[in-house]
Amino acid sequence: MNHRIACVIKNMESMGLTQLLVSDPMSIRYLTGVYVEPFERLYAFLIRTDGEHTFFLNHLFSVAETGYNEVRFSDMDDQIALLAAHIQKGKLGIDKTFTARFLIPLMERTGITPILASQAVDDCRAIKDDEEQELMREASRINDRVITQAFNAAKAGMTEKELADFIDKTFLAEGASGPSFPTIVSVGANAADPHHEPDDTTIKDGECVLIDMGCVYKGYCSDMTRTFVIGQPADPEFTKVHDLVRQANEKAEAIIRPGIPLSTIDAAARDFLAENGYEKEFNHRLGHFIGQTDHEQGDVSATNENLTVPGMVFSIEPGVYLPGRFGVRIEDLVIVTEDGCEILNHVEKKLQTI
Amino acid sequence: MNHRIACVIKNMESMGLTQLLVSDPMSIRYLTGVYVEPFERLYAFLIRTDGEHTFFLNHLFSVAETGYNEVRFSDMDDQIALLAAHIQKGKLGIDKTFTARFLIPLMERTGITPILASQAVDDCRAIKDDEEQELMREASRINDRVITQAFNAAKAGMTEKELADFIDKTFLAEGASGPSFPTIVSVGANAADPHHEPDDTTIKDGECVLIDMGCVYKGYCSDMTRTFVIGQPADPEFTKVHDLVRQANEKAEAIIRPGIPLSTIDAAARDFLAENGYEKEFNHRLGHFIGQTDHEQGDVSATNENLTVPGMVFSIEPGVYLPGRFGVRIEDLVIVTEDGCEILNHVEKKLQTI
Repeated sequence: MNHRIACVIKNMESMGLTQLLVSDPMSIRYLTGVYVEPFERLYAFLIRTDGEHTFFLNHLFSVAETGYNEVRFSDMDDQIALLAAHIQKGKLGIDKTFTARFLIPLMERTGITPILASQAVDDCRAIKDDEEQELMREASRINDRVITQAFNAAKAGMTEKELADFIDKTFLAEGASGPSFPTIVSVGANAADPHHEPDDTTIKDGECVLIDMGCVYKGYCSDMTRTFVIGQPADPEFTKVHDLVRQANEKAEAIIRPGIPLSTIDAAARDFLAENGYEKEFNHRLGHFIGQTDHEQGDVSATNENLTVPGMVFSIEPGVYLPGRFGVRIEDLVIVTEDGCEILNHVEKKLQTI
Repeated sequence: MNHRIACVIKNMESMGLTQLLVSDPMSIRYLTGVYVEPFERLYAFLIRTDGEHTFFLNHLFSVAETGYNEVRFSDMDDQIALLAAHIQKGKLGIDKTFTARFLIPLMERTGITPILASQAVDDCRAIKDDEEQELMREASRINDRVITQAFNAAKAGMTEKELADFIDKTFLAEGASGPSFPTIVSVGANAADPHHEPDDTTIKDGECVLIDMGCVYKGYCSDMTRTFVIGQPADPEFTKVHDLVRQANEKAEAIIRPGIPLSTIDAAARDFLAENGYEKEFNHRLGHFIGQTDHEQGDVSATNENLTVPGMVFSIEPGVYLPGRFGVRIEDLVIVTEDGCEILNHVEKKLQTI
C-alpha cells in the first residue's frame, strides 16, 4: 500500500471509520495518481480500512486500469445503486466536496450515517513531503521571476487585462503549465476589492497596482501578492498603509515555527494592524494552505487552533482595503521547517515606485 | 415578486416544501441577478414560500445591497449557526450543488431532513423565456460564424492547440465574452476520446478533425460540434460512420415536438446507430440542456422520461468513437417550439473535406 493511503487509513482509524468516500479530484490524484475533472458527474474513490479500495469511474473519463477495484458505469446506469453495493451499513466518511446530488439519494437508499471526514485525507495532504516541497519551491521561483518581469513591463496607460495577459504568457515562457488561479491586477480603487477581476482600467501615475498571481509547476502551485505604484503615490495615506501591511506580513512570518496555533500567526498580523487603526480594513483571514490547488483545506485564521507541523505550506497575506481609494496586500508562501519557516518568495516587499 | 421566484415557489408547493436553500451560483443569478463565484465558501439564497427570502453572503463577495434579507459574514464566523438561525425544523429543500462541507454539519446541528429539491429551480430554468431564447440564438449565430472561420484557417501542420486558440480569439472578435467551455479540437485517434484536450498533435492529411465549441453571449451559451477532414479520409470506415452520425443527428431532430419523452429523442439516434452496427461505440447520452451554463440540469438520455415543453433548449450530439482510429460527433442546439423545433446551428453537417 502506498504511504499516502496508509496515512489516510491511520486517520480513519482514529476517527472510528472503516470506510471513506473520497470525491475531491485533487485528493484522488494525491492518493492514486489518477486525475479526472468530473464536472457534474459522479467520481469517487472508496477507501476501506480492510484494504479493499474501489474506484467509481464513468466510461467517459478515459482512465486506464487503476490497479484498484473498479466500478465503471455510463450516464444511463443507476449510479447510486452501484455506490450502495460497495458501502457497508453504519458510518460512512464523506469528503467535503461530495454534492447533495449524490449524498442525499445515497443516504435515502442506504440509511448510512454520513460523517464529514475530509480531514482524514486533508491532514495528510497538508504536510508536504520532500518531493512536494521541492516542486513548490520551483513554482515560487518561477513566480518571482515572472513578477519581476511584470514590474518591468508595467507602465502608465496599460490596462489591468493587458498586464494580466502578460503575466499569464510569461508563466508559460518560464516553464509553468499556467496560472494557479485567475491572475489579479487591480489599479487604484479596484485594489480595495480583494477579488477584483482585471478589466480595462488603465494604470495611472500615482495609483497603486496590486498584483496577486501564481502558477502551476508539475502539478503544484505558487501564489504571491505585491502592491506597487507608478511614480509618487497620490493618496497621502498610501505609503503609511503599505509600510504597515509589510510589517504585518513580516511580523507574522517572524514567529512561524512548529507547534504554534495557526491562530497565533493570524493574530501577529491582525493585532499589529488593529493597534495602528486598521482592524476593520483587514477583512479576511491571514492565509490559506496551498499545494496541488491554490486553496487547500486549512487556513491561518483567528479560529484555527490547529498547531503548525513541519512540511505545512501556507500563504501569509495581510491586506488593508479602503473602499473607493486603494488596497494593499503583501503575500508570500512559507514552508514550516524544523526550527522556523522558509519563505518561498524573494521579491522585495518594501514599496517599489516604478 | 419576480416571476422566476414565483415559478420556484409553485414547484416547492407541489413538492410539499416551505423552504429551499439554493446554492448553484447560476440558479441564484437566474433568480436574483446577483452573480458570485464562491469557490469553496458558503453562498446560498434561501427561498421560503411565505416570501421571506434570505441571502447568505461572505463579506469578500463584494455584492451590493440585494433587496432581500441578507446575512453577511466573514470567514471567521460560525456560518452553520447563521444558516441554522434562518431554517425551520422539518424538511429543507437542498440544491444539487450544496456540498457535504456544509450539508453534514447543518444536518447534525439542526436535525432537518434534507430533500434533494434542485428540480424546483431547474424546471423553471429549463424553459427559456423569449429574452433568453433570443440571447441563445445570438450565441449560436456567433458560434456558426466562428466555426466557419476555423474551417478556413485549418490546414495540415497546424496543432490542435493552435486551432483551439484561433477559435477562442475569434469568439472575442465576433462579440462573445469567451468560450462556454474549453474548446475541443481533436485530430485522428484523439477524436475517439470524447473529452480529449487540445495538445500539440498536428492536423494531417486524411485524418479527421473534431471541433466541439461554444461561446457565451450576454450570459447565455452556445455549443456545436462538427467533424471534418483535410483531403481524403485515410480510414475506409470514416466516411460511412460520418454519414451515419449525421443521419442519427437529423433523425433525432426530425421528431422533436412538445409532449414527447426526452428518451424517445435519444432512442431515435441510438436505435439507428445500433441497427447499423454502432451501438457500443455511441457511449454517451444524446444531449444535455444548456442556458447560462453549457451543461444545465436535464438531458436527452435513455432514462429521462420527462416530456418536452416549448422553450426547452438542449443539444443533439450523437457520436461514434473507434479507439485508436477516429471519432465522429455532430451536434446542434435546438429550441422546442409550439409545433416542432428550431435548430440554432446552420453550418453544413455533411462531410466537409478541406
